[in-house]
Amino acid sequence: MAKKLWGGRFKKELAQNAKDYSYSLQVDQLLFPYDIAIGCAHVRMLAKVKIIRRAEALTIERGLKKVLSDFYGKDLGVFATQYEDIHSFIQVQLEKRIGAVAKKLHTARSRNDLVITATKLYLKDALEIMDGAIIALQKALHRCAEKYQTVALPGFTHLQHAQPVLFAHHLLAYVEMLERDRARCRDAYGRLDEMPLGSGAISGTTLPIDRAFVARQLGFSRLAQNSMDAVSDRDSILEVVSACSIVMMHLSRLSEDVVLWNSAEFGFIELSDEYATGSSLMPQKKNPDMFELCRGRTGSVYGNFIAVLTLMKGLPLAYNRDMQEDKKPLFEALHTTLSSLDV
Amino acid sequence: MAKKLWGGRFKKELAQNAKDYSYSLQVDQLLFPYDIAIGCAHVRMLAKVKIIRRAEALTIERGLKKVLSDFYGKDLGVFATQYEDIHSFIQVQLEKRIGAVAKKLHTARSRNDLVITATKLYLKDALEIMDGAIIALQKALHRCAEKYQTVALPGFTHLQHAQPVLFAHHLLAYVEMLERDRARCRDAYGRLDEMPLGSGAISGTTLPIDRAFVARQLGFSRLAQNSMDAVSDRDSILEVVSACSIVMMHLSRLSEDVVLWNSAEFGFIELSDEYATGSSLMPQKKNPDMFELCRGRTGSVYGNFIAVLTLMKGLPLAYNRDMQEDKKPLFEALHTTLSSLDV
Amino acid sequence: MAKKLWGGRFKKELAQNAKDYSYSLQVDQLLFPYDIAIGCAHVRMLAKVKIIRRAEALTIERGLKKVLSDFYGKDLGVFATQYEDIHSFIQVQLEKRIGAVAKKLHTARSRNDLVITATKLYLKDALEIMDGAIIALQKALHRCAEKYQTVALPGFTHLQHAQPVLFAHHLLAYVEMLERDRARCRDAYGRLDEMPLGSGAISGTTLPIDRAFVARQLGFSRLAQNSMDAVSDRDSILEVVSACSIVMMHLSRLSEDVVLWNSAEFGFIELSDEYATGSSLMPQKKNPDMFELCRGRTGSVYGNFIAVLTLMKGLPLAYNRDMQEDKKPLFEALHTTLSSLDV
Amino acid sequence: MAKKLWGGRFKKELAQNAKDYSYSLQVDQLLFPYDIAIGCAHVRMLAKVKIIRRAEALTIERGLKKVLSDFYGKDLGVFATQYEDIHSFIQVQLEKRIGAVAKKLHTARSRNDLVITATKLYLKDALEIMDGAIIALQKALHRCAEKYQTVALPGFTHLQHAQPVLFAHHLLAYVEMLERDRARCRDAYGRLDEMPLGSGAISGTTLPIDRAFVARQLGFSRLAQNSMDAVSDRDSILEVVSACSIVMMHLSRLSEDVVLWNSAEFGFIELSDEYATGSSLMPQKKNPDMFELCRGRTGSVYGNFIAVLTLMKGLPLAYNRDMQEDKKPLFEALHTTLSSLDV
Repeated sequence: MAKKLWGGRFKKELAQNAKDYSYSLQVDQLLFPYDIAIGCAHVRMLAKVKIIRRAEALTIERGLKKVLSDFYGKDLGVFATQYEDIHSFIQVQLEKRIGAVAKKLHTARSRNDLVITATKLYLKDALEIMDGAIIALQKALHRCAEKYQTVALPGFTHLQHAQPVLFAHHLLAYVEMLERDRARCRDAYGRLDEMPLGSGAISGTTLPIDRAFVARQLGFSRLAQNSMDAVSDRDSILEVVSACSIVMMHLSRLSEDVVLWNSAEFGFIELSDEYATGSSLMPQKKNPDMFELCRGRTGSVYGNFIAVLTLMKGLPLAYNRDMQEDKKPLFEALHTTLSSLDV
Repeated sequence: MAKKLWGGRFKKELAQNAKDYSYSLQVDQLLFPYDIAIGCAHVRMLAKVKIIRRAEALTIERGLKKVLSDFYGKDLGVFATQYEDIHSFIQVQLEKRIGAVAKKLHTARSRNDLVITATKLYLKDALEIMDGAIIALQKALHRCAEKYQTVALPGFTHLQHAQPVLFAHHLLAYVEMLERDRARCRDAYGRLDEMPLGSGAISGTTLPIDRAFVARQLGFSRLAQNSMDAVSDRDSILEVVSACSIVMMHLSRLSEDVVLWNSAEFGFIELSDEYATGSSLMPQKKNPDMFELCRGRTGSVYGNFIAVLTLMKGLPLAYNRDMQEDKKPLFEALHTTLSSLDV
Repeated sequence: MAKKLWGGRFKKELAQNAKDYSYSLQVDQLLFPYDIAIGCAHVRMLAKVKIIRRAEALTIERGLKKVLSDFYGKDLGVFATQYEDIHSFIQVQLEKRIGAVAKKLHTARSRNDLVITATKLYLKDALEIMDGAIIALQKALHRCAEKYQTVALPGFTHLQHAQPVLFAHHLLAYVEMLERDRARCRDAYGRLDEMPLGSGAISGTTLPIDRAFVARQLGFSRLAQNSMDAVSDRDSILEVVSACSIVMMHLSRLSEDVVLWNSAEFGFIELSDEYATGSSLMPQKKNPDMFELCRGRTGSVYGNFIAVLTLMKGLPLAYNRDMQEDKKPLFEALHTTLSSLDV
Repeated sequence: MAKKLWGGRFKKELAQNAKDYSYSLQVDQLLFPYDIAIGCAHVRMLAKVKIIRRAEALTIERGLKKVLSDFYGKDLGVFATQYEDIHSFIQVQLEKRIGAVAKKLHTARSRNDLVITATKLYLKDALEIMDGAIIALQKALHRCAEKYQTVALPGFTHLQHAQPVLFAHHLLAYVEMLERDRARCRDAYGRLDEMPLGSGAISGTTLPIDRAFVARQLGFSRLAQNSMDAVSDRDSILEVVSACSIVMMHLSRLSEDVVLWNSAEFGFIELSDEYATGSSLMPQKKNPDMFELCRGRTGSVYGNFIAVLTLMKGLPLAYNRDMQEDKKPLFEALHTTLSSLDV
C-alpha cells in the first residue's frame, strides 16, 4: 500500500493539533521534583561506575538543582505548548544552563523507565501524606466520640430504628474503616517500593550500571526484576486508585450520615457556620455542602479507577503511549481523596 | 444533642479548606458566556412584564456585556480562590460596574435553575461543534476511501484472515458508526432543548414572569414543565457523556486498526512524520502515538460517565450540592471527545 | 518458532475447560425464538430466489417450528455442556428431525450476521415491554398524585426544607423523568431497527439473496449498509444498556425518597405489609426492602454498561469472539431494569 | 399523611413480584456449606456458655449436618421461589428434621452478622483456590520459558519493534505480574480474616457469648471490634473484586499478545487444535477464541467492581438491604477470574 496513506493528507493542518493532543506537561508537572531527584541519583551512579566523569556528574547535578530552584512551586502549565512533557522540559532547561554535557544525563536511561520511577516516588510521598490525613480524621472522630461518650442515638438498619447505640460507637465504626484504609495503603506502598530504573526502554542496558546504588539514593527497598514488566506495569497506580475509591466510599457513607443527621427531621446535629452554607431566599437553612460535595466526588474517584483499568485492558507488552493517560486519573484521585479527608 | 457538635471543633482551621473544597470557578468558568446571555434575556423579560423598570434592565444588560467583554477569553481560574462560582463572579463584577441595581438581576431567579439552564446552552453549542467534527472526520474517511478505491486488504475476524475486503469498505464501516453517533447527539440535543429557567430553587416563583419570552430569546424550543424535575434533572449530561463514550469506543477501534496496520508485521500503512513520533535510541521506529493516546483516553471518558452516574445514584429530590460535580466530567468528556475527533 | 508452542503442552487436560469457558447456551438461550424466526424467513427467501427448492424450504421451516414447539419455555441451560451456543443447538436439533437438508439453512448465512440479527429482534421486543412497564409506573404515579392532590410536603434542597411543594408535584417530577426514558428507548429502537442479515461473516455473500424480503418478514425497517460495520457493531446494545442505567438512576432516586419518607424521623408514609419486611427481633420496624434492593441494583446496571464498553474498547474490525460477552450484561441489565420497574 | 399511601394500592398484584425481586437463594446458595459450618460452631458455643443445653446443641448440629448431606452439591436454585434466602432455607429444612428446637439456633445471632461471616469464610476459600490457580499458571509460563530459552522475539513498544528480547523474558514478565496478584490476594485475606459473628443486627447482644471460641472453630484469626462496622462493612468484597480486576487486566494483556502472535502477520505461534476453533467457511483460520473471551470477560469483572462500589456509595450505617446485592458481582467476579486463570 502507498506510503503515508493516512498521514500525507493532513500534513499541514494537523501538526499543532497533534501536539496539543499529546503534550502532557500540564498534568505531569507534578513529577517535577521526583524527576530531578532521579537525575541526580542517576548521574552520581554514572560517575561511580565511571561511565561519565565525576566533574560531569557534578555539573549535571548542580544544573538540575538550579532548574529545580528556578521553577519550584511554579505552574509549569504555562510552558505546556512548548514542551512535550516534564522530562523534555527539564532536559531543555538543563541544556540552557550547562550546555552539551546535559545530554549525558540520558546515558543508560530511557523515558520509559524514568516516568514509572518518578511516578512511584510520587506515589510513595502521596501515600505518606494520605496516611497522615487519615490519622488526623481518626483523631478528630476519637475526640468527638470522647466528648459525647454518653449520648445515645437510634441505631438504624434499613433507615429504620433498630436498637439504640452510642453515638461514640457509631463514630468509632468509621475509625475501624479508616484503619483498614491505612492498612491497604501500607500494603500498596510495600508492593510498589521497587525501583524500575535500569530497565531502559524495554530490555535494560548493556552498560555496567549499579542499580542498587541508585535505589539506595532514592530510598527504594528493592529492584524490579523483569525489565519488560517494570516499564509496562501500572499495578501500583491501580492499587492506589482502588484504595482511594474505598476511602471515598467510606467518606460518602459518613457524609450521608451527616446529611441525614443535619436534616430538620433527624435534627441530631447542627453544623457550624464555618462549613455550612445558607441561602439568601431561605435563611432558615443550613446546607451541608461540604458533605454533599464529598459524596458527589466519590463518583469521580470511581471514574478514575475505571479510566486506568480501561486504558490498561488488552494492551500488549511492553510500553504503549496509552499509558501516558494513567497520570491524570491518578493525580485526580489522590487530590480528591486527600482534600476530602482534609475537609 | 449539643449544637455545633461537629462544626465547633474545627472552626478556625477549616474555613479556608472548605472554600478550596467547594469553590468551582476553575471548572464552571466555561459557562461564563452562557450565564451572561441568560442574565440579559432575563432582565429584558423582567422589564417586559414590568417587574423592573426598562432603564434598570438596560443598565444591567449593558453591565453584563461589559463584564463579558472585560473577561472574554481570559482564564478566570486565577480568581478561583475569591469567588464561589461563575455566578457569584459575574454578580460581584456587575455590582462593581453598575452598583446596587445589579441585585435586581436575581429577581425571580435562583442559582438552581440558572446553573442547569447555562449548562444546557453550553451543551447545545458543544453538540453542534461535535457534529461538525464528526462530519469532518467522515469526509476525511470518504476522501481516503475514494483515493484507494481499488486497494484490497485481508478482512479479519478473530484477527485471522477471513475474506478479502476493500480498504474503502473498511473505512466506510467507520463512516456508518459515526453516522449513528451523529444521530445519537441529535436526539440528545432535541431532548435537552427545554428551558429550566423559571423553576426557581425548587418550586417556581409567584411573580408573573414570561418564561416563553426568555426561551425564545435564548433559543430553547420548549419549557420544562415540572420545576422539581427541572432543577434536579441531569439526564442531558448523562446522555451526552454516554454518546461521547460510544464515539470514543469507535475511535478506539479505528486507533487499534491503525496501530496494527502500522506495525512492521502488518505494514499496511506508514504514518506521516507529522503525527508519528520517533525514538532517539531506535530510529527505525514510527510510533503511532496519537492513536495510542486516543485509545487510552477512551477509558477516561468511560470514567466520566461512571462519575456522573454514581453521583446521581440515590440522590433524593430536588437539588443537592453533589450535583455541582456533574460539570467536571462533562467538560472533560466533551473536551476529550472533541480533541480526539479533531486529531 | 515451533508450532503448537502454547497448545501442545496442555492438550489433554484443557479441552473440557475450554469448552466450559466458551460455551454460551446458558446465556444465549434467550435468543431461541428469534433465531428460529430468522431461520424461517431466511429459507423462504432462499426458495424465493431459487437458491434452494420450495419443498426444501418448507421442510426446514416445519422442522424449525417443531424444534421451537419442542423446547419453547424450557430451560435450555441443561444442554449447556453439549452445545456451543443456541445456533448449534438449533442446527443439531433440526438435523435430528429432518436430516441432511437441514444443512441448507446455513446457505448464504454466517453465525456473525445471525447472532446480531437475533439480538436486535430480542432488543426490539424488550424495548416494547420496557415501554409498557414505564407507562404502567407513570400511571401508578399519576393515580397516586390525583388521590393526594392537596397534600403538601416540605420541598428539600440539600435535604433541608426549602419551600413547601405539593406531594403530587413531587411525584409528577418522576413522571417527567420516565417520559424522557421512554423517548430514549424509542430513539434507540429506531436506530437499531436495521437488519444486519446478509452481511455474512464479514463481507456479504456473492449469492443473489433478497435482503429486503427477509427484512420485511422479520419486521425490520431498514437494511444495514456496510457488512463490516453490521457484524461488528454493538452500538444498539450500548445504547439500550445506557438507557437502562438512566432508568435505574431515576428509580434509585425514587427509592431514596421512599426510604427517607418511610423513616421514623420523616414519617411521611407507611409502607404496605405487602412489600415491606419486618424483623423478628424488632417488631416495630417496617423495612423498605424493595426500594433498597432497587437502589442497590442500580450499581449492577452501571456495571453492565461498563462491561460492554470495556469489552468493545480497542477491538479491531470486524468480528472478535470477545463480542460474545455482550449478551450477559445486556440480558442482566434488561432483566434488572424491567423487574425494578415492575416492583 | 394517610397510612399505606403507597402500599395499599398495589396490594394484590405485587406480592409475588416483590418476592421474585427480593429472593436471593439463586445467588446465595454458594454460602450453603459456610452457613452450616457457622451454625455448628455457634451452637457448640451456646452449649459451652450454657445458653442452651448440650443435648440441644448436639441435636441441632446433627440436624445441620443432615441438611448439608441431603443437599450438598445440588442446585438449590430450584427452591428459589419458596425461600427468601439460604438462611431461611436452612432454617426451614432444619425444623423439618428436628422440630422446634431448631429455633434455638438463632439465639444471640442475626441475619446481619451471619451473612457477612459466611461471605468471609467463602472468600477465604476462594482466595486459596485463586492462589493455587495463579501458581499453576505461573508454573506453566515457567515451563514454557524454559523450553524456549533461546528463542528471541522483537520487543515491542508502541507495537513497533524496539529491541530484541528473549521470548522467555516476555513470559516471565507475566510471572512477575501474577506474583503481585498473589501478594494482593494474600493481603486481602489477612485483612478480612476477622470474625463479625456476635455483632447481632447492629449492636451485639447482651447474652454472655464466647466469640473467641467460635472464631477458633471457624478458623478466624481475629474478632471484629465494632459491631456497627462489622455488619455494614463490605471492604473485603471490594478488595477481592479489585484484585480480580487487576488479575483480569493482566490476563487480557497476555491474551492480546497471544491473539497478535497467532495472527498470520505476526505468525510467532500456532495454537493447538484443543483450544482454537475453526470456521466452516474459512478452513485456513485458527481462531484464538479462548483468549478473545478472556479479553472480553475482563470488562465484566470491571463492571462487577463498579457494581459493588456504586451500591455502597452513600449508604448510611449500618445494614441496608442494598447490601444483599454485593454477592452476585462478587461470585461472578471470582468465577470469571478463576475460570480464566484455569484456561
